[in-house]
Amino acid sequence: MRLTRYFMPTLKETPSEAQVVSHRLMLRAGMIRQASAGIYSWLPLGFKVLENIDRIVREEQDAMGCQQVLMPTIQSADLWRASGRYDDYGPEMLRITDRHDRDMLYGPTNEEQITEIFAGSVKSYRDLPQLLYHIQWKFRDEVRPRFGVMRGREFLMKDAYSFDISKDEARRSYNKFFVSYLRTYERLGLKAIPMAADTGPIGGDMSHEFLIVADTGESEIACHKDFLGMNLGADIDYDDNLQPIVDNFTAKYAATDDKRDEAAEAALGDDLVVARGIEVGHIFNFGTKYSEPLGAKVSGPDGEEVLVEMGSYGIGVSRLVAAVIEASHDDNGIIWPESVAPFHVGLINLKAGDADCDKACDDIYKTLKDQGIDVLYDDRETRAGAKFADMDLIGLPWQLIIGPRGLKNGVVELKNRKGGEREELSLEAALSRLTA
Amino acid sequence: MRLTRYFMPTLKETPSEAQVVSHRLMLRAGMIRQASAGIYSWLPLGFKVLENIDRIVREEQDAMGCQQVLMPTIQSADLWRASGRYDDYGPEMLRITDRHDRDMLYGPTNEEQITEIFAGSVKSYRDLPQLLYHIQWKFRDEVRPRFGVMRGREFLMKDAYSFDISKDEARRSYNKFFVSYLRTYERLGLKAIPMAADTGPIGGDMSHEFLIVADTGESEIACHKDFLGMNLGADIDYDDNLQPIVDNFTAKYAATDDKRDEAAEAALGDDLVVARGIEVGHIFNFGTKYSEPLGAKVSGPDGEEVLVEMGSYGIGVSRLVAAVIEASHDDNGIIWPESVAPFHVGLINLKAGDADCDKACDDIYKTLKDQGIDVLYDDRETRAGAKFADMDLIGLPWQLIIGPRGLKNGVVELKNRKGGEREELSLEAALSRLTA
Repeated sequence: MRLTRYFMPTLKETPSEAQVVSHRLMLRAGMIRQASAGIYSWLPLGFKVLENIDRIVREEQDAMGCQQVLMPTIQSADLWRASGRYDDYGPEMLRITDRHDRDMLYGPTNEEQITEIFAGSVKSYRDLPQLLYHIQWKFRDEVRPRFGVMRGREFLMKDAYSFDISKDEARRSYNKFFVSYLRTYERLGLKAIPMAADTGPIGGDMSHEFLIVADTGESEIACHKDFLGMNLGADIDYDDNLQPIVDNFTAKYAATDDKRDEAAEAALGDDLVVARGIEVGHIFNFGTKYSEPLGAKVSGPDGEEVLVEMGSYGIGVSRLVAAVIEASHDDNGIIWPESVAPFHVGLINLKAGDADCDKACDDIYKTLKDQGIDVLYDDRETRAGAKFADMDLIGLPWQLIIGPRGLKNGVVELKNRKGGEREELSLEAALSRLTA
Repeated sequence: MRLTRYFMPTLKETPSEAQVVSHRLMLRAGMIRQASAGIYSWLPLGFKVLENIDRIVREEQDAMGCQQVLMPTIQSADLWRASGRYDDYGPEMLRITDRHDRDMLYGPTNEEQITEIFAGSVKSYRDLPQLLYHIQWKFRDEVRPRFGVMRGREFLMKDAYSFDISKDEARRSYNKFFVSYLRTYERLGLKAIPMAADTGPIGGDMSHEFLIVADTGESEIACHKDFLGMNLGADIDYDDNLQPIVDNFTAKYAATDDKRDEAAEAALGDDLVVARGIEVGHIFNFGTKYSEPLGAKVSGPDGEEVLVEMGSYGIGVSRLVAAVIEASHDDNGIIWPESVAPFHVGLINLKAGDADCDKACDDIYKTLKDQGIDVLYDDRETRAGAKFADMDLIGLPWQLIIGPRGLKNGVVELKNRKGGEREELSLEAALSRLTA
């Protein structure tokens, strides 16, 4: 994409309304614009990142055997009355009356709706387990929306639901999501730590939040230092017993702010890490809380009717865009991990308008595109300093810098955004580095 | 995907509430379930088709140089008051009050919102034209929602917007969308005819609807018979002057029900075709209708401020799923065009549980998947008749039928859903046909 044709309205000034770094950088990089309080439009650069994260989340849900559906944003109030949550939910739920005076609502989550779909379709234990997910916009009418897309009112969430014949089977489904979440965060370049959590308005018996460590995180967390070095490692077979992996990731102390335990922390001594964290996922096992009022039963092996055991599993997709930035930026701007970067390379023409520079850049641009490399070409007739600043701001992993002096000497400059190293090398060497 | 693991709750009975064939077939094939009046959940099979259509629409928008953004579903009423449409729109607009008593609405379209984004970002004629689109759920509170996703209340729409410095340039943008729409429908296997249209609540000077011909269409249309044989043909260069193509597709008589002209039709004689049609797209050129009240100006070549000339361009993405079915089905079910089919092949194991059949089918299933062919494997222990009926119902382009007798003779059966031909041939020949 040529920058002269790309709709990327960057800002020079730091917007005064933005309190956290991800919000500031997303506004400055032209990724988002506020539509109204806590509601944002995604401009092309931001939309590409959102899509990349969406794709990784989907791939990991598919890999664990979860099937994608799509439920609507607007739900009937009657369904929530049946579960008892219509009154429980409070003013965070956006309530709507349609033209026929029917009570509707903008879904903040979908336990009731998926349970109704399940109950109308699945009749036998032979068709279990069922694992279903969707990625859809949700609305929670926060009193004070803030921090940009980190705590917006309209937000994109992946929510999944499991239906099992027994508590043991439900635990197996829970473990699959637990492990797939760790994989998802690893692919996003995030260090996520599972922590025991309260179940809140979703309800249930067992629950974990996943928090990522970021200096600018929203809340304080404490954990054993070993968590910072833990990785899932090799490929996962989701048909295996995953309990050992879950045990490994829950054996040591890790606590959100409201769950901290002074005695446990004192016992850890030098092994204790206190850091800032951002919640990026929450999973629940809630048994028959919804299957009972909504009549989600199947016939069991002996012919008797059995209420299904359920769980739900959420990842904030739009929130993750901000979380990745909180975890990966510097004073000059965003530093995208390769997996979610909106473009792989930024090509900087230091002297747009100069015939040799234009010709060289046009050729390089075509070569990169032909090799399937997503490249943003800064072909603007602007001073070099502004180009460097914008390219650092938007945080593409690589910058390929072409200037008249280098061309005369047969070299180009390659900069790695993360490490900051700049290197002069031949064009061939630079291209082979970028396509490696 | 193995059918025993796939969430595809087909129905044997024809649902009594469904009046049109696409609605009946989508319910029966387990593609959708009604959530409430005019609001649907998309189950895995339906979601795959929706995604395929979404992808084709995106590819064609990208190909013409339109950039993807994503605006939220909930908009501020103030923005619509500024354009004057808040009062004009009537009860079809879903109006909402948030917890702070602010007036909001669920967007039925996005002219105001995109104009606000443009006005806050683009300042010079040098940055024109700007062509932006998004694909987002919309809500129109129809008095009598019906015909399933054909006339639902919550629906997925691609809407695009153009911003130009002059009427001539705006016409060039309009022509790009006109041509890209024809390409989009062709790729979906649809015969679409552009017809001059009223501008309705969007407003403007020039407008075309695109109607596809389907025996079960919602309204009567009339046109010169030449339209039924017209194709765009070769590749389009969107930088060319597209006026000759637009002229070619608008030169002859074509009229929606409310625009028909008795005299013109009489003059056509045997060249007149009267048929049923379904509206699948609508494009508008509306000049400064929104740029004026919302202050969308750029500095022109002479330094003076110029109001931008705008257009908007809509395709009903969820409606197209139904429209494709209306245009392509028979008494037994859906007949998907290859481009949007949820799977390319249905593999039918005639005797699931039989060791030889299971082994052969497992091998074929793996071979097809390894070659990147999307296959739905009916591995259920059910009678053959039910399998044939379900496979015809869901309408995959090819059926590969494996039975014990054929295996003994070294043959399998290949059925083309569209033509209905069944052919016995060697497995190798069948596979090479499917991967051609």
